[in-house]
Amino acid sequence: MKNQKVIDVYQGLVVKFKELIREHEIDHDDYQELVNWMDRLGRAGEIPLFMDVFFETHALQEMYKNVKGTEPTILGPYFIENTPIVENPGELPQREDEPGDVLNFSGSVKDTDGNPLANTKIDMWQADANGEYSYFAEGIPDNNLRGVFYTDENGNFEIKTVVPGNYSIPSDGPSGQFLKWIDHHAFRPAHLHLLFQPENGDKLVTQIYFEGDQYLDNDVAQGVRGSLVTKLDKKSGAEKGLETDYYTAHLDFELRLQDKPVFSKEVYSV
Amino acid sequence: MKNQKVIDVYQGLVVKFKELIREHEIDHDDYQELVNWMDRLGRAGEIPLFMDVFFETHALQEMYKNVKGTEPTILGPYFIENTPIVENPGELPQREDEPGDVLNFSGSVKDTDGNPLANTKIDMWQADANGEYSYFAEGIPDNNLRGVFYTDENGNFEIKTVVPGNYSIPSDGPSGQFLKWIDHHAFRPAHLHLLFQPENGDKLVTQIYFEGDQYLDNDVAQGVRGSLVTKLDKKSGAEKGLETDYYTAHLDFELRLQDKPVFSKEVYSV
Repeated sequence: MKNQKVIDVYQGLVVKFKELIREHEIDHDDYQELVNWMDRLGRAGEIPLFMDVFFETHALQEMYKNVKGTEPTILGPYFIENTPIVENPGELPQREDEPGDVLNFSGSVKDTDGNPLANTKIDMWQADANGEYSYFAEGIPDNNLRGVFYTDENGNFEIKTVVPGNYSIPSDGPSGQFLKWIDHHAFRPAHLHLLFQPENGDKLVTQIYFEGDQYLDNDVAQGVRGSLVTKLDKKSGAEKGLETDYYTAHLDFELRLQDKPVFSKEVYSV
Repeated sequence: MKNQKVIDVYQGLVVKFKELIREHEIDHDDYQELVNWMDRLGRAGEIPLFMDVFFETHALQEMYKNVKGTEPTILGPYFIENTPIVENPGELPQREDEPGDVLNFSGSVKDTDGNPLANTKIDMWQADANGEYSYFAEGIPDNNLRGVFYTDENGNFEIKTVVPGNYSIPSDGPSGQFLKWIDHHAFRPAHLHLLFQPENGDKLVTQIYFEGDQYLDNDVAQGVRGSLVTKLDKKSGAEKGLETDYYTAHLDFELRLQDKPVFSKEVYSV
């Protein structure tokens, strides 16, 4: 059925498309090459990848630039809904011989006034130590390193997982062609994905990064925010009677309460 | 390899994308819906269709707005290169029992100073009387109603074909979903496609439309230009000893000589 927002956005996009053509002297041959490349991108199923790597971060920065609370960053193309519910404290579903170092990731969840938010739903997903995601790479069980949990009565959580590896976007298709054109490598820094849904508030889509990662400053998806970088603390496994050492990491999160639209006059009246 | 124009256009597009987000209050859910719809569009192979119907005409109007000569209009997604060369005068390849009314389409080709352009290569292609294109609809022989010919020593041509039918863009996929959102029908007025390549000049991509067509004023692809509308003249077949009546149509074309870039300071210094 008719959708006035689609009409308005389309008409607005046509105006900007024409400006782009004039400003960059795009001719009819350029246009045809663009459409042919977009067609290859689309047929390869790479549109979510391309958009989330090259546009989503900019969209979010615009959407949330005057909004309080923990900074959002890209959802990316690898989110899966309704993954298994795990205990808190607990651990993400993983293989018995899951490669990589053990990571105990903990956090506190509060509102922007500092009140703990109990029973906040958290989706967590991540690449494995080789930088690969379940459902999207061969040979990894469904739901591996994906799960849903809820904050405790004090708004805290602690989840056992593994330290994720650096992730490379697929670079053998049209998105890889684009990387060659813009002369950029294909890597993202290692990260954990988190999607928070408080009982009475706006959801938060964000990620965690780790100090010292070589791709923090040149993330292909430009998703890093300084406030989302935390530290991997190496702990002695022997002290706890474990065979190997392990890591801990922690971050505190602040969520906006009430499902306030990002675009409201109140938010933007500052 | 690195392509500075791609980098510049991408960076320019990011700025405009952010403006669009702000101006139309696009939130993260809207963004996800947009990407999901684009993914369906891409996987369905409809990106060339969508772009050529909803963006190409605007691109061309911007590219050629200060340029002399016959107005260009959309190439569309149905052009095929290297179709059979036919005589001039002659006829487009067609079935023995090709449906529809016979059309003798003629034209003159001159430069913008009025000098006839002999030996100009012309690609011509069109939908059949049912609005369907060879190579893109089932049951139509390859190259049906497609051909290449050259203007004679006076810059003239005359080609026998059939009157094309109104064309409907495919409306059962993501492009059809978009039509519902913008509340528009799927039809284009009947048209002939022409691509001119003079021996020493800029190519011209254009189309011919016919007076009285119900879709001239509401073409889904907005490709109609008043200067490209001509008249279907009904002629008595009996007078020529033919079994049926037929139609003639004519248009004069003006091509820009020298392969002058559309975007040059000279062109835009006016």
